[in-house]
Amino acid sequence: MNSVALKKNHKALRAEMCAMGENARKAAAQLRLSAADTKNKALDAAAAAIRLHEKEILSANACDMEAAASRGLSAAMLDRLKLNGKRIEAMARGLEDIATLADPVGREVARWTRPNGLDIARVTTPIGVIGMIYESRPNVTADAGALCVKAGNAVILRGGSESMHSSRVLCAALVAGLEEAGIPPDAVQLVPTTDRAAVGMMLEGLGGTVDMIIPRGGKSLVARVQEEARVPVLAHLEGICHSYVHAEADLTKARAIVVNAKMRRTGICGATETLLIDRDVVRTHLVPILDGLTATGCEIRGDKEVVNAYPAAKLATEDDWHTEYLDSIISVRIVDGVEDAVHHISTYGSQHTECIVTEDDKAAEKFMDELDSAIVMYNASTQFADGGEFGMGAEIGLGTGKLHARGPVGVEQLTTFKYLVRGSGQTRP
Amino acid sequence: MNSVALKKNHKALRAEMCAMGENARKAAAQLRLSAADTKNKALDAAAAAIRLHEKEILSANACDMEAAASRGLSAAMLDRLKLNGKRIEAMARGLEDIATLADPVGREVARWTRPNGLDIARVTTPIGVIGMIYESRPNVTADAGALCVKAGNAVILRGGSESMHSSRVLCAALVAGLEEAGIPPDAVQLVPTTDRAAVGMMLEGLGGTVDMIIPRGGKSLVARVQEEARVPVLAHLEGICHSYVHAEADLTKARAIVVNAKMRRTGICGATETLLIDRDVVRTHLVPILDGLTATGCEIRGDKEVVNAYPAAKLATEDDWHTEYLDSIISVRIVDGVEDAVHHISTYGSQHTECIVTEDDKAAEKFMDELDSAIVMYNASTQFADGGEFGMGAEIGLGTGKLHARGPVGVEQLTTFKYLVRGSGQTRP
Repeated sequence: MNSVALKKNHKALRAEMCAMGENARKAAAQLRLSAADTKNKALDAAAAAIRLHEKEILSANACDMEAAASRGLSAAMLDRLKLNGKRIEAMARGLEDIATLADPVGREVARWTRPNGLDIARVTTPIGVIGMIYESRPNVTADAGALCVKAGNAVILRGGSESMHSSRVLCAALVAGLEEAGIPPDAVQLVPTTDRAAVGMMLEGLGGTVDMIIPRGGKSLVARVQEEARVPVLAHLEGICHSYVHAEADLTKARAIVVNAKMRRTGICGATETLLIDRDVVRTHLVPILDGLTATGCEIRGDKEVVNAYPAAKLATEDDWHTEYLDSIISVRIVDGVEDAVHHISTYGSQHTECIVTEDDKAAEKFMDELDSAIVMYNASTQFADGGEFGMGAEIGLGTGKLHARGPVGVEQLTTFKYLVRGSGQTRP
Repeated sequence: MNSVALKKNHKALRAEMCAMGENARKAAAQLRLSAADTKNKALDAAAAAIRLHEKEILSANACDMEAAASRGLSAAMLDRLKLNGKRIEAMARGLEDIATLADPVGREVARWTRPNGLDIARVTTPIGVIGMIYESRPNVTADAGALCVKAGNAVILRGGSESMHSSRVLCAALVAGLEEAGIPPDAVQLVPTTDRAAVGMMLEGLGGTVDMIIPRGGKSLVARVQEEARVPVLAHLEGICHSYVHAEADLTKARAIVVNAKMRRTGICGATETLLIDRDVVRTHLVPILDGLTATGCEIRGDKEVVNAYPAAKLATEDDWHTEYLDSIISVRIVDGVEDAVHHISTYGSQHTECIVTEDDKAAEKFMDELDSAIVMYNASTQFADGGEFGMGAEIGLGTGKLHARGPVGVEQLTTFKYLVRGSGQTRP
């Protein structure tokens, strides 16, 4: 297509996207005032619709899978894209679980009276319209849609293009649920095109209708959000997570934690990408831990000292310390104590999740105190960086920014608040 | 200056600004870990330095005032710029008050244990580097600098150009306090130029060193932030506040509240800009309330019905409903009940602060429920929209965005948090 035609198309796309925003805003104004029961009814009805339309979902997903395979997607990406009966049932149950969560809206989180008699209450409220940009994972369509509705927000979903057919059917099930409960169907909308220009329009805020963008993804999305976002962003971006084996680490614990932190699931943002080992325990701990990793199929990329001590390792480059592999690869570096570990993590990390393995409480507290990451752990796998594991129920992901919410983002984090001030005629002196 | 020379200058300015950001980041890394006593010592020492340098501050301020007068600034703006002995003492005492506030950093706001034994704590932490863009008000230099330091943040201050000389001397006093306490002086820096390009550079984030921008100001800053900000923003922008006199309003209360809400101080963001009067009480309440306003020197701009009922009023234009006067002017409209009032406010307001005056609890609750403003009041002057009046101590201003913090922003709102997860070797199943 020549550039004039493309521009013309983008004008039409912009009009369509802004209309979606306008419709979302209208829906949000109604949804905001909906009772908890109404929202929960919509989620239960959506779960039923997902079960009812299992065949359609499977056939749409088959269509996505075929196209994705022909485009040469990696096995890991294909696995995330794939749906089956079990996964569809899990999505439906996920919506029902969200329905059972306490309503996050209208909660009085604080209330006090001033000496002049003014009664001040801080009450949770929905945010409004949320734009959600995410990977080719159909289950996120269901989860994110449901979490936003539960928190009283309208949402515009933009999943990865490979999942378009699956997401469309799943979104229709969510909308069927909304309609059954009498909530405006525009409360959950799916961007109907795979044109990447739509992402840019969402980042611009769709003509002032979007209150917040949640971008979920890796390096290329990071850069785009940084450059193009014109509305508040609750970033769910890179997780370059570290596990640090301290001089006082128990070897059995360290080996179990590191192998789990890296290899339990390599594709999640809380997976460890870099292992730091204290020089004091290189002779005792390095080989057993790296053996544990290679035994589960992990590639090791180490600094010079690591490669000397463990010849099966490849030599890491500077890039490796900056890389979120999301794969069976780990970078390994020798460090000199807590300070040096903190320095490496502060230099190369993404402030997501880090862990120290040690039997020395003081070292652990120093590590946890000095690091400025959303989650800092002590003797536990970084793969616990998850809303469910934190006991917060379902999550939309893990926030990597500093404002509003860090760490797991669930229904509570998808709300804001207002102050209600009740007086009896007070004027300010 | 020709455009090539200007560009070259901007290149130098950019280098200088980015160096400020880099220095702020280094200072923040140290300040983040400073004890409460150290920060408080710095604030008390800064207060002493302000008192010690009263003469210098007055002479710098005289210089600013002279230039501002020759540039034709309004009396209201000149008043905000002007310092005298009393105001300087108030600034010094303000810093001492901030020193006495509870330390907002390192507070454990929640802690729980999971069934698998993981102990999860949510602990407050500083945000990092804050860029503060504000009006020509020297006292904000002292307040904002002190509040950021108290919350463990480094700050880069960019006050209005008319206050440059005053702000420079005040900033030097803050820095003297930091040095006395052993905190890196770059924790508080003032942008040393009135070049407006510096504001754009701050909005871009100074090479990734700024964690958050706090813009304080009106319409022109709103537009600039919207267009240019590339980092998270805690907006302190327009306050188009409304007072609504309901059909069941007590006339005496209504008159006192409205006159106070508009006229106590017209230049603050919580001042009422638009008065809505219910049609049912136009005959009884309109004239006494408008008489109360005109008696204190307020200009009335009303819709047609208001002008008919109160000929001293000028006819309002569509622009008036969108305008934050920050002056002795009020726009007045007749509305048909709560729904109509909510509709007007939702259409024209800036989601800052609104008030209903009524003796009808149900109407008040409906108004408070349906409006999505940071602060919604019932029988109280909108001028209570203030951190001090809320009992939160000193404030940097009133947040008008939806994320992170709405309403008064004090030291607590200038922090973020992290999760500390303590385990005993747990791996995720």
